[in-house]
Amino acid sequence: MIDCSFLIKAASCLYYTQQITKDIMKAFSEYSALIEKNIRDLEFPGGELTSLYEPIAYGMSAGGKRLRPALMLMTADAFGGNAEAAFRAAAGIEMFHNFTLLHDDVMDNSDTRRGRPSVHAKWDVNTAILSGDTMLTLATQLISDVEDAKLRKVLDTFNDMAIRVYEGQRLDMDFETRDDVTIDDYIRMIMDKTGALIGASAKIGAIIGGASDEDASRMYEYGMMLGVAFQIQDDWLDVFGDSNTFGKPIGGDINNNKKSFLLLSGLADKGAEGIALGEAMKLTAGDTKVKVVTRLYEKMGISEICKKEIARYVSRALAALRKINLGEEEKEPYKKLLDKLTGRKK
Amino acid sequence: MIDCSFLIKAASCLYYTQQITKDIMKAFSEYSALIEKNIRDLEFPGGELTSLYEPIAYGMSAGGKRLRPALMLMTADAFGGNAEAAFRAAAGIEMFHNFTLLHDDVMDNSDTRRGRPSVHAKWDVNTAILSGDTMLTLATQLISDVEDAKLRKVLDTFNDMAIRVYEGQRLDMDFETRDDVTIDDYIRMIMDKTGALIGASAKIGAIIGGASDEDASRMYEYGMMLGVAFQIQDDWLDVFGDSNTFGKPIGGDINNNKKSFLLLSGLADKGAEGIALGEAMKLTAGDTKVKVVTRLYEKMGISEICKKEIARYVSRALAALRKINLGEEEKEPYKKLLDKLTGRKK
Repeated sequence: MIDCSFLIKAASCLYYTQQITKDIMKAFSEYSALIEKNIRDLEFPGGELTSLYEPIAYGMSAGGKRLRPALMLMTADAFGGNAEAAFRAAAGIEMFHNFTLLHDDVMDNSDTRRGRPSVHAKWDVNTAILSGDTMLTLATQLISDVEDAKLRKVLDTFNDMAIRVYEGQRLDMDFETRDDVTIDDYIRMIMDKTGALIGASAKIGAIIGGASDEDASRMYEYGMMLGVAFQIQDDWLDVFGDSNTFGKPIGGDINNNKKSFLLLSGLADKGAEGIALGEAMKLTAGDTKVKVVTRLYEKMGISEICKKEIARYVSRALAALRKINLGEEEKEPYKKLLDKLTGRKK
Repeated sequence: MIDCSFLIKAASCLYYTQQITKDIMKAFSEYSALIEKNIRDLEFPGGELTSLYEPIAYGMSAGGKRLRPALMLMTADAFGGNAEAAFRAAAGIEMFHNFTLLHDDVMDNSDTRRGRPSVHAKWDVNTAILSGDTMLTLATQLISDVEDAKLRKVLDTFNDMAIRVYEGQRLDMDFETRDDVTIDDYIRMIMDKTGALIGASAKIGAIIGGASDEDASRMYEYGMMLGVAFQIQDDWLDVFGDSNTFGKPIGGDINNNKKSFLLLSGLADKGAEGIALGEAMKLTAGDTKVKVVTRLYEKMGISEICKKEIARYVSRALAALRKINLGEEEKEPYKKLLDKLTGRKK
């Protein structure tokens, strides 16, 4: 903490603070590494409670790019020059994200997660439910570890986000048995299920960093639009990605009849190819189905539709970013992050 | 709000406040009725989100005595003369309680709850998981609806309690497959699983009412001890209760080989009857097993052991109550509540 209380030193002190901010502002990958270490340092009770906490430690150790907490740290740093003030809250947002993975894997009956058995597969469904519940409360505790003056805003942002995530998951599950899902329905669903969490990560970082309410809202908008672009990219990778780097089998969405952005875009075509796609989706799951549907997507130019839609959300994220009261240098990592996440091959 | 800021009116104002407190302080059953109405007034989103929120409304409409929120209201009233300030938080504590019921019923595979199908039986397991998650966040939102100066304490009490409840549920599940569970283990487990929630209900009411930290802690102790006595009574009723009023089939714990206070007390007897009880527990579930085990309990005087243990926790609750800085009249409903819950026939 730099003592700025002597007015006579104010000018040089301000200069010094800016220097420090510049020194501290890092590339996204560095915040990722910071939070990774921080998460590794979390300690959980053992003894007879190992059965409750070991699955939590397991879930948290799965790695990944730590997008949400790293974005939070980066944003606390951009506004306040103090990423450390957001360490606990950032661990909390990652804890929340992992809680949703535990429960989603039960609901979706997914036995693997990032190349390892999911929690309910490694232990059992009851463990995934109860350790997941525990993670939600642990997440709330970690998120609340901010100064008193910021508690209400941080907590409200967190809880409102959580409700949107559940609503998104519910819509996603209900889409499975509905045959009237539109692209607008889909966008609304991924805004809730994916966008809200990334938006809240950025916003909470902004609040902790001392941003104005307006800038905090714009950061939310940036994260939300980033999240939507990211999800459409993820849908695209599920069909056109590289199986060596994507981490999931290619064509999983096709075989699971998932109402992805690609499928809904294809079915929106009321011509011969759209009808053929509808028929192809009735095929039995397997390599042939994946090949036939992928070929139809290619013929219909679905990749181009995806790229256009991604570009639309990227430009909305950039528009939000432009309005934010930060220097161009502080905004640079946010632009790079957009490129990184929407241009990714994996 | 009575304006007490004029010093010249201080004495009469104090008198007036006391009058109001007396007028407002009600019997427990009246707080119960108050919160019942309050819970009925909760509104949930409909439309395409009906599938998420209808099971929540269903869970919350099951009734019961509303012990936890009514205790919270009563305590906010006892200290602050203002039950209304705790309305939202009280609905939150009931929401939390009902969230645990949704998930516990999945984990315990219980298809009925208070004479109706449980949520996973009426809808499905995924619905019980996801609507339960939503209830936990809704509960946190409701609990947080207190004045800013009290938010940190209320939230910390709530989250610490939630963690204890999960730990208690985990221990309870693990007890099923352990054969070394002691009575001390059992008491620790019900302190976590049942006592902590009742304790936190009283403590949060005290915080909202403006009690000192010491009195808030004593209220927690009162609720914790009440909870333990209540649970042992519940175990006893499961064997010796009246099937018309208990709400669950008599002998359920015996047929499920549940490590209840009665069974653990019986098995602690290393003589002939203790051994016979161990053998009787190996019988196939059914009326005969219930009869044989109940007869052994009677022979061993397990009812007297239960009554003694209940009395021990009731006297600890009374000891906590004695130290609390409230008038005798304000303490009266707490004594009656102890009688009501530990002398109950149903």
